Amino acid sequence: MSKKPAPLSRLSCCGGERIMAALKGKWCTETYRDTALSFRIKKKLYAKKSGFQMVEVYETEKHGNLMALDGCYMVSEAEEFVYHDMLAHVPLFAHPNPRNVLVIGGGDGGTVREVMRHKGVTNIDFVEIDPDVYEVSKRYFPALVKGLEADKRVKFKFGDGIKFVKAARSEYDVILIDGTDPSEIAGGLFGAEFFKDVHRALKPDGIMCMQSEDPWYDLDIIKGVQTRLKKIFKKAGLYLAYIPIYPSGMWSFSIASKRYAPSETRNKKSKIKKFRYYTPALHKAAFELPQFVKDGIK
Amino acid sequence: MSKKPAPLSRLSCCGGERIMAALKGKWCTETYRDTALSFRIKKKLYAKKSGFQMVEVYETEKHGNLMALDGCYMVSEAEEFVYHDMLAHVPLFAHPNPRNVLVIGGGDGGTVREVMRHKGVTNIDFVEIDPDVYEVSKRYFPALVKGLEADKRVKFKFGDGIKFVKAARSEYDVILIDGTDPSEIAGGLFGAEFFKDVHRALKPDGIMCMQSEDPWYDLDIIKGVQTRLKKIFKKAGLYLAYIPIYPSGMWSFSIASKRYAPSETRNKKSKIKKFRYYTPALHKAAFELPQFVKDGIK
Repeated sequence: MSKKPAPLSRLSCCGGERIMAALKGKWCTETYRDTALSFRIKKKLYAKKSGFQMVEVYETEKHGNLMALDGCYMVSEAEEFVYHDMLAHVPLFAHPNPRNVLVIGGGDGGTVREVMRHKGVTNIDFVEIDPDVYEVSKRYFPALVKGLEADKRVKFKFGDGIKFVKAARSEYDVILIDGTDPSEIAGGLFGAEFFKDVHRALKPDGIMCMQSEDPWYDLDIIKGVQTRLKKIFKKAGLYLAYIPIYPSGMWSFSIASKRYAPSETRNKKSKIKKFRYYTPALHKAAFELPQFVKDGIK
Repeated sequence: MSKKPAPLSRLSCCGGERIMAALKGKWCTETYRDTALSFRIKKKLYAKKSGFQMVEVYETEKHGNLMALDGCYMVSEAEEFVYHDMLAHVPLFAHPNPRNVLVIGGGDGGTVREVMRHKGVTNIDFVEIDPDVYEVSKRYFPALVKGLEADKRVKFKFGDGIKFVKAARSEYDVILIDGTDPSEIAGGLFGAEFFKDVHRALKPDGIMCMQSEDPWYDLDIIKGVQTRLKKIFKKAGLYLAYIPIYPSGMWSFSIASKRYAPSETRNKKSKIKKFRYYTPALHKAAFELPQFVKDGIK
């Protein structure tokens, strides 16, 4: 048995049918697989259907501004550093000398922002399908897009990342896939055909990395991704990070490489001094999976 | 930006004032520091005020039976192995030869069950303040209490763990503190006086371990615990585990030792073959903290 909250600021904890009484005031809620995660909000800042999805932004009490796409939390000001540190820096430090990088998705800008911190990187192709997400991020998440438009290395290419990758040949050192869940808009980002295209788009020592859902409720999805990656790439691995706005709080990243073991750091050129989540020791440690995850992806 | 759910079984995701519409059906909810975590339930199985706290049990869709004390989730059938593996096995493998073990709290039985798996352990004093918690666990969480009453090493001592420790002198190899949050009933379990009593109750090479809240919303509590432990013990450390029913999903354990560095495994006698969460590699990896946690406990 375990423990929880300090009682002082605790709202009346409650159960069952008392949910409505407990959640007085305004909250945003994501429901997922018979669970729901809610944040108390100050107000709703934005809600509009783009050409691709419903885009919403809330001002929350605990997580700053929070963006949801089609009702699913994507990013908040408070926790964005975890996701962006771990999606960008693990592959960029696993590669000895990343120069040409492709980011698919990541319309909020945070992943590109972290890639930009690697001074050796000379080009970043940034392919987001939904320009509205970037515009909303500029307005409500200024820290995520900071410096992006001023950095000449960043090439904005709004469009379909799947088509974009299909046309690329042995060009990239690192490809980061920062899409949403495997639904209509992003489902293709989890398939073998796309992974083959990514493999072809990478240089002979290239590395790809993508978010791959949570091991608590979606271990089958992760196993599928890992199985496909292992067939196509020489090396594949899985690592985890704590993301409090995603289902279960336990999130996975799938990484695959044409040459290098991705759990090792070998980039000595990117002399980044200060991270908020990533550390070189954590790079390796994040690959040490709990037994049930190891069993689940076998 | 990131991703979420596979859409098929997704309930209508929603935000703000639409929460009530989204959470149709019966749910249990814990609210904590402007966040709320809900699980869809089949039914409420039990709700009764014990001599110490409100004890509730729900049958949930995703987590099996789930116990809440004073409205805070304590343990569910689905995730209990994480907490119990990590609270019991990290200190019991950090110690070279644990024989006499004290468990304070842990009335659901799960921690004692994991301690019992160490064959070298010859005595387990089990001091839970609330006998109703154990009775409820026997009824609704049979896997947690399995074998406890048949194992002659287990000495049930229902009563106040703080008083119990005060009377002990250099007796224990390992003390596990499995209390609730630092509220009225368990607040004393986080204080310097209690830690001094624990220190005195341990043998000269003894190790203690306790749950110590989550780094997202309660980093100040963790820093306080770590600061106090470092003053009293020769070695102190912090490690993390993913617990999907606790706030943020990121949970911490504080461990302190009179002699040994707790991140190393040195117990060669406990030949346990199969874990569900713990692994020897994860033992060490769980101590590799994200940068914001390292900064926060400095």
